[in-house]
Amino acid sequence: MWGMIATWQMARDGVATAAQELQQQGDAGDALVTAIKDVENNPEYGSVGYGGLPNEHGLLEMDAAYMNGNTYGIGAVAGITDVKNPITVARKLSHDHFNSFRVGAGATEYAQQAGFERVNMLTPAAVTAWQERVAEVAGKNLTPYDGHDTVGVVALDQQAKMVAGTSTSGLFMKKHGRVGDSPLSGSGFYVDSEIGGATATGLGEDIMKGVLSYEIVRLMKSGLTPQAACDQATYDFDRRLKQHYGKAGAFSLIALDKQGNWGVATNCEFTFAVATATQPLTVYTANPGPDDSTTFVVTAH
Amino acid sequence: MWGMIATWQMARDGVATAAQELQQQGDAGDALVTAIKDVENNPEYGSVGYGGLPNEHGLLEMDAAYMNGNTYGIGAVAGITDVKNPITVARKLSHDHFNSFRVGAGATEYAQQAGFERVNMLTPAAVTAWQERVAEVAGKNLTPYDGHDTVGVVALDQQAKMVAGTSTSGLFMKKHGRVGDSPLSGSGFYVDSEIGGATATGLGEDIMKGVLSYEIVRLMKSGLTPQAACDQATYDFDRRLKQHYGKAGAFSLIALDKQGNWGVATNCEFTFAVATATQPLTVYTANPGPDDSTTFVVTAH
Repeated sequence: MWGMIATWQMARDGVATAAQELQQQGDAGDALVTAIKDVENNPEYGSVGYGGLPNEHGLLEMDAAYMNGNTYGIGAVAGITDVKNPITVARKLSHDHFNSFRVGAGATEYAQQAGFERVNMLTPAAVTAWQERVAEVAGKNLTPYDGHDTVGVVALDQQAKMVAGTSTSGLFMKKHGRVGDSPLSGSGFYVDSEIGGATATGLGEDIMKGVLSYEIVRLMKSGLTPQAACDQATYDFDRRLKQHYGKAGAFSLIALDKQGNWGVATNCEFTFAVATATQPLTVYTANPGPDDSTTFVVTAH
Repeated sequence: MWGMIATWQMARDGVATAAQELQQQGDAGDALVTAIKDVENNPEYGSVGYGGLPNEHGLLEMDAAYMNGNTYGIGAVAGITDVKNPITVARKLSHDHFNSFRVGAGATEYAQQAGFERVNMLTPAAVTAWQERVAEVAGKNLTPYDGHDTVGVVALDQQAKMVAGTSTSGLFMKKHGRVGDSPLSGSGFYVDSEIGGATATGLGEDIMKGVLSYEIVRLMKSGLTPQAACDQATYDFDRRLKQHYGKAGAFSLIALDKQGNWGVATNCEFTFAVATATQPLTVYTANPGPDDSTTFVVTAH
């Protein structure tokens, strides 16, 4: 068996290429990097990598993480700048036992010293969007952009290895140094090759209140299918958050288990891409359904 | 009922003062800040706040987090510099729905703009220790300091509110921007006033592989006592980590539930302080015991 699931329709092309690698017995980590780099490299996507929208100061700060489900090795960066593919930096860090999560200037310093090329990731279009937004909010109370378009991927290869990874430039106009859930183990991602994995996209400040990716993996460990685990974790937490915190931002979770079964739950409209040994590449639109369920419509192939 | 548990003997004096506040119906968040500030302000402790030991560049970078178990509100900082009490910055951020986790220069910028005094936290003794260590490792492969002396606190007040918090300067000689588990929800800390809370100290890179604080809280939710939850989460993960990763750094976990019962588990010698409505302030030394248990010896009162 092999399989891959990824957040958002923007991941479709990357998943298509990565699925071919998995079909040809490629490594899950290599395939995950293929899928995420495709999104990072595309200037059309304003929330990930090249073309990502900058923070309050006009600086593009990016977050990424990589986890190996065989070893539990994790690498992560937050607030990194001027590096082409944050997911590759995170993956390299995942091989280190110490200092494997780096933030801010120290993350950028690591990438440079490790030989990652320093590049300007801010596109002219992103600069224009930032200038327009600054003008728009001048004199008003700033409301962060509430899109939540992290690319998150869980992959399973034919050697039964599973990996999870994320990459994002975070909220448009975020405060300098703001970090969401994406680089945080348990919140933005988690994977155990003996069980399965999950990743999140959405308002990171709320996702980390529920540690949702870990919760889904531990529900799969208890015997739930990926779909049942996503539904239970997501809708239960959405309800508790509204009770305790008074409101809940948008969030969406994806999961894949070691048999290649997948699941998704979301408290807003959400697109995702999936391909496995038994299911050709499919893009779905998901929505919250009745009684803590999720509804799916096929959007593209 | 009221109660507080805190990592390491260094927390004893702060817990003593905080316990008086809780006994006099003080707020759990205020009491937690009292306890953690006492450790942050003491120049004798090389791993937290003033007197903390610096990173590879001689720069003192600090991490802290605060979680309100009533609302799930979380504030966190990582790699912050030149601020007197990182726990108070984290607590202030916990009131914000957006941008509540700040890292690197953006974290320091937040603290300054929010009116926290900018102070030099690097003591002459810490500078000397750094200079000696630099000389010692010159020409060798650097081995990070493997102490793990984060101060972590879980508190319960007479209004049944629970909070959790952490503060650390991380590994001595850590790489610039290195972040451990302490500011990461689910790994370094987690608390739900309807259940209980937990915090961790140890090698952060390994603790985040197991999301151990969240795991303990969810085991308490399933009905386990804090002690049974700590034992099960800690020793099971220590075993799995050795199997999957080949080795396990030192880590220790503390927990308190909403009835004021507490628990601790550790894979190394570990001291902690506890005080509740029914137990006077006590400092214990804990060690791993037989059959996934933990042994305790009273060290001080």
